[in-house]
Amino acid sequence: MDFSSKLLENAVYEMSQLPGIGKRTALRLVLHLLKQPEDQTSRLALALENLRKEIKFCENCHNISDVALCEICSNPRRDKSMVCVVEDIRDVMAIENTSQYKGLYHVLGGKISPMEGVGPQDLTIASLVKKVKLGEIKELIFALSSTMEGDTTNFYIYKQLEGVPVKTSTIARGIAVGDELEYADEVTLGRSILNRIPFENSLKAN
Amino acid sequence: MDFSSKLLENAVYEMSQLPGIGKRTALRLVLHLLKQPEDQTSRLALALENLRKEIKFCENCHNISDVALCEICSNPRRDKSMVCVVEDIRDVMAIENTSQYKGLYHVLGGKISPMEGVGPQDLTIASLVKKVKLGEIKELIFALSSTMEGDTTNFYIYKQLEGVPVKTSTIARGIAVGDELEYADEVTLGRSILNRIPFENSLKAN
Repeated sequence: MDFSSKLLENAVYEMSQLPGIGKRTALRLVLHLLKQPEDQTSRLALALENLRKEIKFCENCHNISDVALCEICSNPRRDKSMVCVVEDIRDVMAIENTSQYKGLYHVLGGKISPMEGVGPQDLTIASLVKKVKLGEIKELIFALSSTMEGDTTNFYIYKQLEGVPVKTSTIARGIAVGDELEYADEVTLGRSILNRIPFENSLKAN
Repeated sequence: MDFSSKLLENAVYEMSQLPGIGKRTALRLVLHLLKQPEDQTSRLALALENLRKEIKFCENCHNISDVALCEICSNPRRDKSMVCVVEDIRDVMAIENTSQYKGLYHVLGGKISPMEGVGPQDLTIASLVKKVKLGEIKELIFALSSTMEGDTTNFYIYKQLEGVPVKTSTIARGIAVGDELEYADEVTLGRSILNRIPFENSLKAN
């Protein structure tokens, strides 16, 4: 595209770096901002900068949090013997919405994916294993999306915990194989937590 | 949605103010930024702020430009006797891409739309009329989208120019090149028959 302005070209370029936003959509978004009051753009820019610079992650579960220990981890009414292993904060939000789960979470920050160059060391697996070995956690619920990467990650963690006395389970495959967690409806997702099965059984199922 | 962080909530809210971006998409975009290097977010924020604060509009055609007179208006090889009236910069870019037009443009900044509270005074119509009355422009080509708002705007400008010796035309409406006749809507097909052109002309165009 041939822009008549470097400023515009630059803004469109940066906007089109976001996933799912092509050049045309980026141009539409940027032109929309130009028609709005100036402070809308300032607020957007400031919110993004502040988030990126000041964001903290809960030191226990690695969830996004404004304080050192997130709301869930610091809630005395949550069951600390149960930890649900998820990929990112969207999965935490999705499971919280079901109101079916009262334990804690552990946010991995992704899945093991050799294709995308994500190895176990890029995720918070070491911190999870360390936490489990302390012995306070009785059950680990794997709630990663049921893709090959998710299964690989589950299995890697499972192997790391061999010999550690902790029960492992995965959420029930009520969710279609290949679907992303965040798009599942609440009833299905809630039921899949209630009907979790021992990890060994899920291996047989595949 | 229940966010665990005010910073995150704020960023998602501001992002979801953009057209076509809902809360879920906004969350996806913001979480993507969190995974990228910090300077990507800074560059995006800066590009948007700079654009919004320092953007200029060409004083002749009102197109977006970094200088007082845009590239097209200041190009001595463009035909200054012809002005194409368009809604916004995207239309300029679309027409420029065809390489079929060598005249100038006039960017209205929108269409007259009582439903959205846009009247003639919100657009650059007065400046267009003034420019035409100077007498240097021989032909005005209306290239607004053929919606009710577009037609109203064309007609309003046409009325404003009553008695002014300038030729007015609109871009041809018809079946898109490569389209099947049977899928065309009745109005377009009807108009394309009424406004048929000599066969020899269509040969020249190819």
